[in-house]
Amino acid sequence: MNKKRKVVIGLSGGMDSATLLSLLLEQGYKVYCCSFIYGSKHGKYELEAAKNIIEFYKSKGRNVIHHIFNLTTCFADFQSALLLSGPAIPEGHYEAKTMTQTIVPGRNLIFASIMAGLAESIGATEVCLGIHAGDHFIYPDCRPQFIHSLGQTIGFSTDGKVNITTPFLFNSKADILYKGYYGVNPKVPYELTRSCYKDQPKACGKCGSCNERLSAFAEHSIKDPIDYEGDD
Amino acid sequence: MNKKRKVVIGLSGGMDSATLLSLLLEQGYKVYCCSFIYGSKHGKYELEAAKNIIEFYKSKGRNVIHHIFNLTTCFADFQSALLLSGPAIPEGHYEAKTMTQTIVPGRNLIFASIMAGLAESIGATEVCLGIHAGDHFIYPDCRPQFIHSLGQTIGFSTDGKVNITTPFLFNSKADILYKGYYGVNPKVPYELTRSCYKDQPKACGKCGSCNERLSAFAEHSIKDPIDYEGDD
Repeated sequence: MNKKRKVVIGLSGGMDSATLLSLLLEQGYKVYCCSFIYGSKHGKYELEAAKNIIEFYKSKGRNVIHHIFNLTTCFADFQSALLLSGPAIPEGHYEAKTMTQTIVPGRNLIFASIMAGLAESIGATEVCLGIHAGDHFIYPDCRPQFIHSLGQTIGFSTDGKVNITTPFLFNSKADILYKGYYGVNPKVPYELTRSCYKDQPKACGKCGSCNERLSAFAEHSIKDPIDYEGDD
Repeated sequence: MNKKRKVVIGLSGGMDSATLLSLLLEQGYKVYCCSFIYGSKHGKYELEAAKNIIEFYKSKGRNVIHHIFNLTTCFADFQSALLLSGPAIPEGHYEAKTMTQTIVPGRNLIFASIMAGLAESIGATEVCLGIHAGDHFIYPDCRPQFIHSLGQTIGFSTDGKVNITTPFLFNSKADILYKGYYGVNPKVPYELTRSCYKDQPKACGKCGSCNERLSAFAEHSIKDPIDYEGDD
């Protein structure tokens, strides 16, 4: 198996990366999870979620390591509604035009570049990202053409030592939930994950990210285990 | 002219990026210079050089802005002789095999990604890098195929808003020196630049980077204005 194979992944603390982690662990990989502090509104809740997910798998004896990168100075002058320095988070559908305000310039490129550097340094041949089809419409740095080009660039940068893989690139969030809920043991602890974009501990249930999450659970008639603002 | 055109560049404090800055300022660009703290042995001397170069151009009334990014946590687990955490800097020719120890995994990709994010945020359409032909042999992240692929990736990441340009990609260090010494007014303050890779205030004159610099000056029979270890 892949018992000694190392893989580097981005672990935001959301559903997609948590599911990715669970599938890679089940395949026997040693998983180096990278979380990034970059001044986003939901950053501290995401990071807490990422830490809790790591603890969950560690308590099951899984082979998982957490790297936390502080990029606060990098994103200090960047413009985005997702950042603490930016305007309010728009509400509505995940693919609504207003959601373009939540694009963070260069985010995935910066994160993937750092992960590739780490991978090369520790002798991992793969950087694996949880990007999915629902991200394509709004976020240019989640589209297949970007991912393909990124893989090529990282290949040149590392002299062929590191590849990019994105197993969910053509899956919906509902597909990912289905895999993580029914296709892996133990099932992904979705109660520990964080999707909401807003700067508040409880999920708002109204932003694009909450709406996409709620739709995924509704599609499979699974109850979302997290609390939402306004719930009794 | 380009009076209002913004460009983002990497300013290491070395000869190439200092020359690049001077040429862009002469063309009327507003230049956003990015310096990166990443735990390299020569980092504090490079940064001091970068700051002095910026001050030089500011004192001439030029339109230049300095952004300093602290990436110390990013590179903490990276392996390279160039880093404070790594083995000794090798001595010898810039293109000698031993110089591969000075590769820093992902460095240019990470730096360029951050610069592209800044460019998109401030409405600059170009990220300009001082990479030159002498870098190709040892450093995979300086080769034309990497630069070409990087430009494409950044294009996808920014939805076509930001390009990469590398005017010195096929020039030698001697070519660059010639431009900066005879082709721009005022001539580039090479006395303020830093090339040596070692963790010491005075240039060693023996590492690959010092050797490449000395050869460039020798080729044009120009006296290198900086002091070297062992000089009287």
